[in-house]
Amino acid sequence: MSETTRTQVVIVGAGPAGLMISQMLANRGVDSVAIDIRTREEIENTHRAGILEAQAIKMMDAENVSDRYKTDGYEHDGTIIRVNGVSHRINFKELVGESVWLYPQTDVFIDLANARQKAQGDVRFGVSDVEVVDPYSDNPGVKFVDADGNAQEVRGDFLVGSDGSRSICRFLIPEEGRTQFFREYPFAWFGIMAEAPMSADELIYATNERGFALISQRTESIQRMYLQCNPSDDMYQWSEDQLWEEFQSRLEGSDGFQLKTGKIFERTLLPFRSFVQEPMQHGRIVLAGDAAHTVPPTGARGLNLALSDARALGERLAAAAKGNDVSKLDGYQEAALKRIWRAQNFSYWMTTMMHSLPDENPYDYKRRQGELEMVLGHKSGQTHLAEAYSGWPNEEDGL
Amino acid sequence: MSETTRTQVVIVGAGPAGLMISQMLANRGVDSVAIDIRTREEIENTHRAGILEAQAIKMMDAENVSDRYKTDGYEHDGTIIRVNGVSHRINFKELVGESVWLYPQTDVFIDLANARQKAQGDVRFGVSDVEVVDPYSDNPGVKFVDADGNAQEVRGDFLVGSDGSRSICRFLIPEEGRTQFFREYPFAWFGIMAEAPMSADELIYATNERGFALISQRTESIQRMYLQCNPSDDMYQWSEDQLWEEFQSRLEGSDGFQLKTGKIFERTLLPFRSFVQEPMQHGRIVLAGDAAHTVPPTGARGLNLALSDARALGERLAAAAKGNDVSKLDGYQEAALKRIWRAQNFSYWMTTMMHSLPDENPYDYKRRQGELEMVLGHKSGQTHLAEAYSGWPNEEDGL
Repeated sequence: MSETTRTQVVIVGAGPAGLMISQMLANRGVDSVAIDIRTREEIENTHRAGILEAQAIKMMDAENVSDRYKTDGYEHDGTIIRVNGVSHRINFKELVGESVWLYPQTDVFIDLANARQKAQGDVRFGVSDVEVVDPYSDNPGVKFVDADGNAQEVRGDFLVGSDGSRSICRFLIPEEGRTQFFREYPFAWFGIMAEAPMSADELIYATNERGFALISQRTESIQRMYLQCNPSDDMYQWSEDQLWEEFQSRLEGSDGFQLKTGKIFERTLLPFRSFVQEPMQHGRIVLAGDAAHTVPPTGARGLNLALSDARALGERLAAAAKGNDVSKLDGYQEAALKRIWRAQNFSYWMTTMMHSLPDENPYDYKRRQGELEMVLGHKSGQTHLAEAYSGWPNEEDGL
Repeated sequence: MSETTRTQVVIVGAGPAGLMISQMLANRGVDSVAIDIRTREEIENTHRAGILEAQAIKMMDAENVSDRYKTDGYEHDGTIIRVNGVSHRINFKELVGESVWLYPQTDVFIDLANARQKAQGDVRFGVSDVEVVDPYSDNPGVKFVDADGNAQEVRGDFLVGSDGSRSICRFLIPEEGRTQFFREYPFAWFGIMAEAPMSADELIYATNERGFALISQRTESIQRMYLQCNPSDDMYQWSEDQLWEEFQSRLEGSDGFQLKTGKIFERTLLPFRSFVQEPMQHGRIVLAGDAAHTVPPTGARGLNLALSDARALGERLAAAAKGNDVSKLDGYQEAALKRIWRAQNFSYWMTTMMHSLPDENPYDYKRRQGELEMVLGHKSGQTHLAEAYSGWPNEEDGL
């Protein structure tokens, strides 16, 4: 016999998208239960994206999540794009009046989990055997086994699928009306975490004929860096010296920039994929975050898009739940998809502009240098990039 | 026995690039002889590009070519980009303070040819059997048969290859140091000339799921329009009704926009290619215009690049000729190529953003719609486009 819980909104997936939606609902007087197959510790120890756009920060404030970012994060007024050893600073603050924050996804998650806990929100980590029940009925829900091994069932009026890139919920959108848009790239990123001081105050996106590198940060003593690689390269086997030499070779320039190095304590291969599933709503089921879309990491859109989905959904879902009125969800996916496809394009653009393709046509290589000149050498190009990177304004959520 | 003429600069190719260089040299007290295998009438009757960027207009004034554009041309403060039947106006004047002029290449040519004639400049059209002689010596020249059938030889201190996309001069750059950068596109433009009133005051770049169309103008009663097509489509065989229906289908929208139609009196297939040859100088030989580079027509860069090459070259070549000093050419190709590669990118960008690829991946189609939203829906994107379209500032010629 399973225990049955009744709530208003069932949230499958308690990462940043699911927890932010749960927080927004609570702030509007709507109950939810969120579940996740991962334990809290697992999620806290997965290193993901690190940059929050201006709009995401505003939402952290507006939804009373936490202001820890102010002490533990770093405000970045710009970023550095380094082309063939020459640095170009994109000054977001000056160009578009916004900044971004270096504040890792794990910290956003911790803040959200703490906020939900403090408000006695019902969030259940480490569950297993999740099964969605009666998704097309008026009381969709989930059956699962909780962290203590007890069978559970939760039913609500709405169901949110925010269960990440390996989503099961996305398949609840009936196949006949569903389209999955997909693109692969012939390269990947090899990421490392290192015990080293910061090499710069802001992120460095570097490109030269050897390929792309990203120099990011975590704290004063822990850094996050990535190298463009061939997915079949086995950089797990490279020595630390080899890795540092490769990083330095992509950053080298006449200004003598030297990367600060240290012990490498984590290595990860990140695949490069672009993915969107449409539609994002079917009746009482809505998708948000990676469950509906993924982007390549260039340009740091992934986490920000998950949060902007939550932003476009929260208010509408609260209204829908209060009146038990599906029509109040209208406009959600239109608003979300408008932002998603622009962000898909931005990620694609940043990716293709800064990565060397294997067997790149020499014309395309030179054209790409012209593109970097056109974008970085003119205020209009810098502004176009800065606006997308620091986040398009909220009013576009159509609320 | 051939007659030998001695001059300072031999110019092979008397299209807009060659004649503008000849004009700039004359304005600086340097003699030149320009030749072309086409007759003046042939060149005047070839319909080519129609948009002059702001910098090109400034050069027409500065070099005393003609101000006929003021009466026979049309100043366009912006352009219209029509996406899936919705018009977006890009207001160049407001965004970047510049305008462009609808003033066809044939008129630019006529003005230049008249200006050279009025100043008794030596320009010889309709020549044949052109052969470059002693290109690597101190007195490079050409042998040819003039329009009256007389063998001629012209020698100078410098030789300009401005002989267009079928250039023979580009092969004077020695093969070992020469690179040809090349890209093809899986589509072409089918162009028509029609006896019809103007459908709009400005150019309309239109794109929808049927593909791209460009509605351009010539005069109050003659219009120029293009349809994206498969190079193997035989639109020469289409009826006028079929062509007009295809145009209208790419422009259709809820605003009921109706194209003004009329008798079609010319049909041309335009291939789509991107090409750059480097270097553009070898000793006393310099290349300018289509001889060194071609762009696809989207974004109207071809003629403007030919003129900006002339602008970057004229002053330097005059100094070189006056002192018979090759080193005075230094900086020409650096300045020209900087603009060329950005323009190559702009043409590629406008092309790929607005054309449907055959068998386009559905993701890429949607991403492209996101790109159009990102560019047209934000002032920063519009400004980025407007600045490139109306022409980057002159100071970048490095003079």
